[in-house]
Amino acid sequence: MNADQMKQIAAEKAATYVEDGMMLGLGTGSTVFYLVEAVARRVQAEGLQLTAVATSSRTAKQASELGIKMIDLNDAPTLDLTIDGADEISADFQGIKGGGGALLLEKIVALNSRRNLWIVDESKIVPQLGAFPLPIEVIPFGLAKLTQRLEAEDLHPVLRRQANGELFLTHNKNYILDLHIGNIPHPHVLGEWLDHQTGVVEHGLFLDVAKTVVVGHPAGPEVLQAPR
Amino acid sequence: MNADQMKQIAAEKAATYVEDGMMLGLGTGSTVFYLVEAVARRVQAEGLQLTAVATSSRTAKQASELGIKMIDLNDAPTLDLTIDGADEISADFQGIKGGGGALLLEKIVALNSRRNLWIVDESKIVPQLGAFPLPIEVIPFGLAKLTQRLEAEDLHPVLRRQANGELFLTHNKNYILDLHIGNIPHPHVLGEWLDHQTGVVEHGLFLDVAKTVVVGHPAGPEVLQAPR
Repeated sequence: MNADQMKQIAAEKAATYVEDGMMLGLGTGSTVFYLVEAVARRVQAEGLQLTAVATSSRTAKQASELGIKMIDLNDAPTLDLTIDGADEISADFQGIKGGGGALLLEKIVALNSRRNLWIVDESKIVPQLGAFPLPIEVIPFGLAKLTQRLEAEDLHPVLRRQANGELFLTHNKNYILDLHIGNIPHPHVLGEWLDHQTGVVEHGLFLDVAKTVVVGHPAGPEVLQAPR
Repeated sequence: MNADQMKQIAAEKAATYVEDGMMLGLGTGSTVFYLVEAVARRVQAEGLQLTAVATSSRTAKQASELGIKMIDLNDAPTLDLTIDGADEISADFQGIKGGGGALLLEKIVALNSRRNLWIVDESKIVPQLGAFPLPIEVIPFGLAKLTQRLEAEDLHPVLRRQANGELFLTHNKNYILDLHIGNIPHPHVLGEWLDHQTGVVEHGLFLDVAKTVVVGHPAGPEVLQAPR
């Protein structure tokens, strides 16, 4: 069974957490694509009334076409539930996100949600974060200086490019540096340090955010609940 | 004597800190305008060879026309000296900047400089920070939510507009919220809190940055040296 099939299994399960009348946050990426499809089937079959905020125009378009009412985050009360993918999740429910480059919007939506649920295939669950390069969104001005500072801290920054070789630009026209750290034994310490760096708009460490993780295995979905 | 004349007095004095061969950082605003003029006179009279990085295109244009070689921050080694104005400076050399909206670029340049010197008229020196509204640069996405969070912390955010009523946009096309706090007894605590807020790109608290402050008084310039 490939990763896409496992994502689909997790997404189907995650869709059962959606309740009539909910205000949802919807993330970005392939797993969320399957989720929106699954939720839309419930909207059709059960007549669920849902309103949602999306972190990308692609998700917004897909959800809107499938019958979910999309609104701007600014017009939403606190979101009931945000469902998103993740690039890596450690045993203690800390996560790395931003592989798709939308970490800033994803974090803003996540922090405005009462509850966060992540859906992943089983390959994303790791004992410790860091094998997946940690994305950080950075200001173009002074980039070389910031890169030197990150290199001096052994964070191994690599400027993200598109497949055609051009620089990858975020929603806010910033750059992404992918930090090839290898292992992050103390994500809160690293997150704190990154928070203080001028020129770093946001980092992809999502700490103490997810309460529920649905993991897709070949045998079926597994639901993990954070103790907090 | 008006504030402009006092700024000019301070700028003239600050220009004497510039040495031949220096790599300078140049800030933004009316005080820096006078500084660049004073430095240019020394370039003309003494043949100083100077290279500089600017935090605004206006300063860059002015300095370049007056014979100072301008380069990109990314191409500069560590700057020897950055000279900038400030909106408020407390007795212990902490400052608020960003009245002109360039706080992000100003902070990036300041942090890449071995030494920072601020020039102000005497009205900017205060016992405690906070009478001047603290500017923070914020991401447009989710602005209403962030504003609510700041209001809940009694930070009294006001979205900055231009004279024509349109929203003020920073160099990076973000917004500025001016926090009308009144007094900031613990700037490090507030700075730390703001560092952690997702959606806040940077704040205008410049803490432990300035080593030297040149104050313009009607009677002449006064030089204050930070103990650190």
